[in-house]
Amino acid sequence: METGISQPDTTLAMTVAYNGAPFCGFARQPGQATVQGELEHALELLFRRPVLTTCAGRTDAGVHARGQVVSFDIAADELAGRTFRTLLRSLNALTHDAIMVRALDERPFGFSARFDAVERTYKYLIATDGTPSLFLPGFSWHIPQPLDDGAMAEAAAHLVGEHDFKSFCMAASAEGKPTCRYVSEVSFERQAIMGEPMLVATVRGNAFLHSMVRTMVGTLVLVGRGKRPPEWVDDVLAACDRAAAGENAPAQGLTLWSVRYG
Amino acid sequence: METGISQPDTTLAMTVAYNGAPFCGFARQPGQATVQGELEHALELLFRRPVLTTCAGRTDAGVHARGQVVSFDIAADELAGRTFRTLLRSLNALTHDAIMVRALDERPFGFSARFDAVERTYKYLIATDGTPSLFLPGFSWHIPQPLDDGAMAEAAAHLVGEHDFKSFCMAASAEGKPTCRYVSEVSFERQAIMGEPMLVATVRGNAFLHSMVRTMVGTLVLVGRGKRPPEWVDDVLAACDRAAAGENAPAQGLTLWSVRYG
Repeated sequence: METGISQPDTTLAMTVAYNGAPFCGFARQPGQATVQGELEHALELLFRRPVLTTCAGRTDAGVHARGQVVSFDIAADELAGRTFRTLLRSLNALTHDAIMVRALDERPFGFSARFDAVERTYKYLIATDGTPSLFLPGFSWHIPQPLDDGAMAEAAAHLVGEHDFKSFCMAASAEGKPTCRYVSEVSFERQAIMGEPMLVATVRGNAFLHSMVRTMVGTLVLVGRGKRPPEWVDDVLAACDRAAAGENAPAQGLTLWSVRYG
Repeated sequence: METGISQPDTTLAMTVAYNGAPFCGFARQPGQATVQGELEHALELLFRRPVLTTCAGRTDAGVHARGQVVSFDIAADELAGRTFRTLLRSLNALTHDAIMVRALDERPFGFSARFDAVERTYKYLIATDGTPSLFLPGFSWHIPQPLDDGAMAEAAAHLVGEHDFKSFCMAASAEGKPTCRYVSEVSFERQAIMGEPMLVATVRGNAFLHSMVRTMVGTLVLVGRGKRPPEWVDDVLAACDRAAAGENAPAQGLTLWSVRYG
């Protein structure tokens, strides 16, 4: 701690939306454009010292967020009379246009966007028309072949509940770490968004492993295309081996939708 | 007509979606990227001769289309055994990624996408959240200030019916031309699109003057922001002078939604 800086005693949380396309993911990396790097750079300019942040879900390169939550600690006197509204405007002015800080509020001191989150919801968009989406090409995976959404829903039901999801975790990230998670929802809904046919996957759970949602979607699409039967998903879970699952669905279709706190 | 080319005897129509951002509008212009230029270039490659096209609505630079209709004549023997499905795929492969040819079908010989259209529908998106839209920034006009949609609807009602819309037409385009049009709907609906608050304008009519929809939206937004009362729109109509209306709404919020034929 530098001389003259008060001890942090206030925790703030931002709700942040971003288009993941221009970034090498959320997590800060030296010399790379990242969402965390952008936010922490803006906070450093505003508070004139380094400010470390914690997020609810570290999204990979190209993955978007609608309701990412990012927390950080400051000392109340560092606000220096500025309102949250002013800070919000400054944060939006100081960060990349693809980042939108939508809310800023105070939480109980010591609140962590990561450890206090009790549920994360992701959505994955599949554009099902013969040609790519006009309105959401950067937010969807275009699959022009027919998808059997009944079979996908049947397969998805096998993923709901408490399971060891090691087969659905990027191999290098799974070693020596707990890989059990509780998934409360994996559902598919056909929707017309701006008049375009989409298959929208909603995946909800307490927490997720590295690239878990994209591996789930890639695996379920194999079932939807008739290349595997729905019950195959049980074999994938049982294998506890990333090689047993389908390919990762492309990053651009995935959006961290919302985060729930207790 | 070149030697050896059969006389056209078949009219085809494409339904085309495009993101207007990369183009200097629909209409071909030498040395400029335009939607018509892209389509006619692809048709020339496929039929090995220049093919002239006609569209339902010439969109300006930056304006999008979801259901633009484009017609052209060929001789049946120029199909050379190719199916519409094959042609559709070739057209999509040969044009800019921002252009999606969604359908291709035969119409009665002599059909004109322009002159046979009986109704055009446009939609205009206004993003009303405090920060710009995450998902549709290139398809919406961001207005963070409150908009009184009741006043806008009241004002819009004055525009419905048969009127001289000279005040709503780009001045240079209106001179010496008929400026009466029949507008059957100007409505506003608050919608959450991908969870984001939008005010969606739908404008429907038999035909439209140059930049008429954008002038309507720009004028109605002045009413929505409380800068003019709803009945002011009658004065704008009566003036028959472009200077009486509001500013053009930005091109990027406008999409040619659909075209109806008799």
